[in-house]
Amino acid sequence: MSTLPQTDLPPADLLKSLLDAALAASRPALRVPACLPEPPRGRTVVVGAGKASAAMAQALEQHWAGPLDGLVVTRYGFGAPCTRIEIVEAAHPVPDAAGLRAAERIFEKVRGLGPDDLVICLISGGGSALLALPAEGLTLADKQAINTDLLRSGATIAEMNCVRKHLSASKGGRLALAAAPARVVTLAISDVPGDDPAIIASGPTVPDATTCEDALAVVARYGIVLPPAARALLESGRGETPKPGDPRFDRCETRLIATPQMALEAAAAKARELGLTPWILSDRMEGEARDIALAHAAIARQVAERGQPFGAPCVLLSGGETTVTLRGHGRGGRNSEFLLALAADLQGHPRIHALAADTDGIDGSEDNAGALLHPDSHARAEALGLRARHYLADNDGYGYFEALGDLLVTGPTLTNVNDFRAILVR
Amino acid sequence: MSTLPQTDLPPADLLKSLLDAALAASRPALRVPACLPEPPRGRTVVVGAGKASAAMAQALEQHWAGPLDGLVVTRYGFGAPCTRIEIVEAAHPVPDAAGLRAAERIFEKVRGLGPDDLVICLISGGGSALLALPAEGLTLADKQAINTDLLRSGATIAEMNCVRKHLSASKGGRLALAAAPARVVTLAISDVPGDDPAIIASGPTVPDATTCEDALAVVARYGIVLPPAARALLESGRGETPKPGDPRFDRCETRLIATPQMALEAAAAKARELGLTPWILSDRMEGEARDIALAHAAIARQVAERGQPFGAPCVLLSGGETTVTLRGHGRGGRNSEFLLALAADLQGHPRIHALAADTDGIDGSEDNAGALLHPDSHARAEALGLRARHYLADNDGYGYFEALGDLLVTGPTLTNVNDFRAILVR
Repeated sequence: MSTLPQTDLPPADLLKSLLDAALAASRPALRVPACLPEPPRGRTVVVGAGKASAAMAQALEQHWAGPLDGLVVTRYGFGAPCTRIEIVEAAHPVPDAAGLRAAERIFEKVRGLGPDDLVICLISGGGSALLALPAEGLTLADKQAINTDLLRSGATIAEMNCVRKHLSASKGGRLALAAAPARVVTLAISDVPGDDPAIIASGPTVPDATTCEDALAVVARYGIVLPPAARALLESGRGETPKPGDPRFDRCETRLIATPQMALEAAAAKARELGLTPWILSDRMEGEARDIALAHAAIARQVAERGQPFGAPCVLLSGGETTVTLRGHGRGGRNSEFLLALAADLQGHPRIHALAADTDGIDGSEDNAGALLHPDSHARAEALGLRARHYLADNDGYGYFEALGDLLVTGPTLTNVNDFRAILVR
Repeated sequence: MSTLPQTDLPPADLLKSLLDAALAASRPALRVPACLPEPPRGRTVVVGAGKASAAMAQALEQHWAGPLDGLVVTRYGFGAPCTRIEIVEAAHPVPDAAGLRAAERIFEKVRGLGPDDLVICLISGGGSALLALPAEGLTLADKQAINTDLLRSGATIAEMNCVRKHLSASKGGRLALAAAPARVVTLAISDVPGDDPAIIASGPTVPDATTCEDALAVVARYGIVLPPAARALLESGRGETPKPGDPRFDRCETRLIATPQMALEAAAAKARELGLTPWILSDRMEGEARDIALAHAAIARQVAERGQPFGAPCVLLSGGETTVTLRGHGRGGRNSEFLLALAADLQGHPRIHALAADTDGIDGSEDNAGALLHPDSHARAEALGLRARHYLADNDGYGYFEALGDLLVTGPTLTNVNDFRAILVR
């Protein structure tokens, strides 16, 4: 019914080359040098927080001509060797004392700068927890308790961030305020749907449109019990964040150096180069991994069986961040689960190949970035006595694809633009 | 950024006209007359089972020139006035004595026919429960107990049907065997993913590729406890179904007179007629309604914000059957839930309008087929104090859209090609 274009690549290698293109377009080593500002007349101070921040710092200092100094905080195990920028490792997603101390020192570094000085702020996913600094009068324990309540409440991310920003000394633009009147250039790697810089790592250099009143409304709406000091902060307005239009942000600028969409566009360009038509479905697919897999499977079948909405051969690309509601005790993350659900539904469709991976290189708790699904995977699994639905019931995507030899291992990539999925329909 | 084509229709009317086109293409009154066989030299006997079977019988007898008699069974409340074909109403989804008696009488009607006679079998969704006839030695209670175990076991639909067909006197081709040597023409309305006639209503006139051994393997795999008579049927092979290639089916033919894809194609044609580009994503979208909504929302946003994978304006169409895992106590079915989840995610996206409906006219337990979502729905709801996420947590799509005045009410359509969704991106 259709043939693959003129490429010698087997489908699995073709899909892996698309992931490689997506990762290359997201790597700090490539993107940071391309997005650096001009050196200032005065001092250059580099700060930052996030899982990619050490890799960003390394790329920066290797390409920065003038003098600089700085400090960035990253997650334990995500460090990178730097000679001029100090790298501190701290806990994520629950902040610890090392992170708090690093956040205090970051604020010390940017205070007292002048208008000729430049702060380069390196922001990536995870930066919110890594740059946690409780507002005056609050303790780390207070913030942890509020956070736990928020996470259980059913509040949306936007609602939770609204409360967090008004109980923080670092989020919602406060880092930029501390750095004024220096120029602040933020280089950000986005891992959030919509790429809003005010949301990535809770926007430490970005003004905040929400108010203390909004935060109190969220607290009331979900029945969150606040420690007295936190309530006082919100009710007195002392927790207020700087607002968009505030002239203190006139010399602040955010450059999105890597986003899910950029990664997908890079994969699409690679597909075209290989003679294959790419279709980007979405850069912000959310929802339960196994159901999002069913939606992808349904579209892939429609392509294969009816040539709708796209003719075959083609490759469907999507990004975003799915979730997994744990039901079993297996291993693996949301991308392995996505692919396992795809396997269970497609049952070895002869013309559909797929790859799903976390662009940070670690899908969940194991050592794999994701996995690959081939037309023969289902039959090979059945021959080994592995039933996809049983593994899915146990959330054991890792076990299923490990037994098939189809795990995809990249190692930590030191970047993160969330999930990457590519489905080839021949 | 884009304008709607030359049509005077407001978006809501435009979406409703697409649903109307889909329903028209699925209605027995239109489709049965178009698909009737030539009258035979001998007798014509009409039988059938399903939620649309009375409406199909009515359309048939209004367009059939020669003599005929017959009996079809439909669900309580789904009858239609017929003068020549007897309509029996029975219980669905759990069979009752009225259904069993009707099934026995249907078999009596087709037995003893000759090669010049014609049986027209009218099949639609629900026909499996409505044409339940336990195999020899089994009671209705046995079948109900096995069914309950199967439904709880985690077995797939294909696996459950395999067991059911081998413990039935009607499913898996047995009705056609009873009618041999008469010619059998089955007119079927599909409500199953993939439109396999062997699966629609468990295929009473279609040979079955699965075996008693397969059924025993399913029973063993899921630890189903069988009554002794049922186990004996499978182990002795007495429960075996006729197989594809069996010459007794040489004069049997199935005509799919309405399918989800046909309905979507009709809606697509209507969209084109209105100057709007339609894209059929899938005719078999399955999965949890709220997550499938997120997948649709993600694609619609990509269209609106990036012109990918389709340029705006356009309309996204999909069919299939989503599911709802009940968490709350609200009213409404899977289509209201889909649309409510879309509302909660899109939060009033200014360029996205949507419609979701069950093509049988009843979405769940209430009186609506589905609902409509407008760009201003979210703001109107908030102004009324209705929070989409709270309604979603309570599975109360009906309550949400009722309060907004945006329920879609068609009344029972007497057909069923599953869900219909249309999302207009301006």
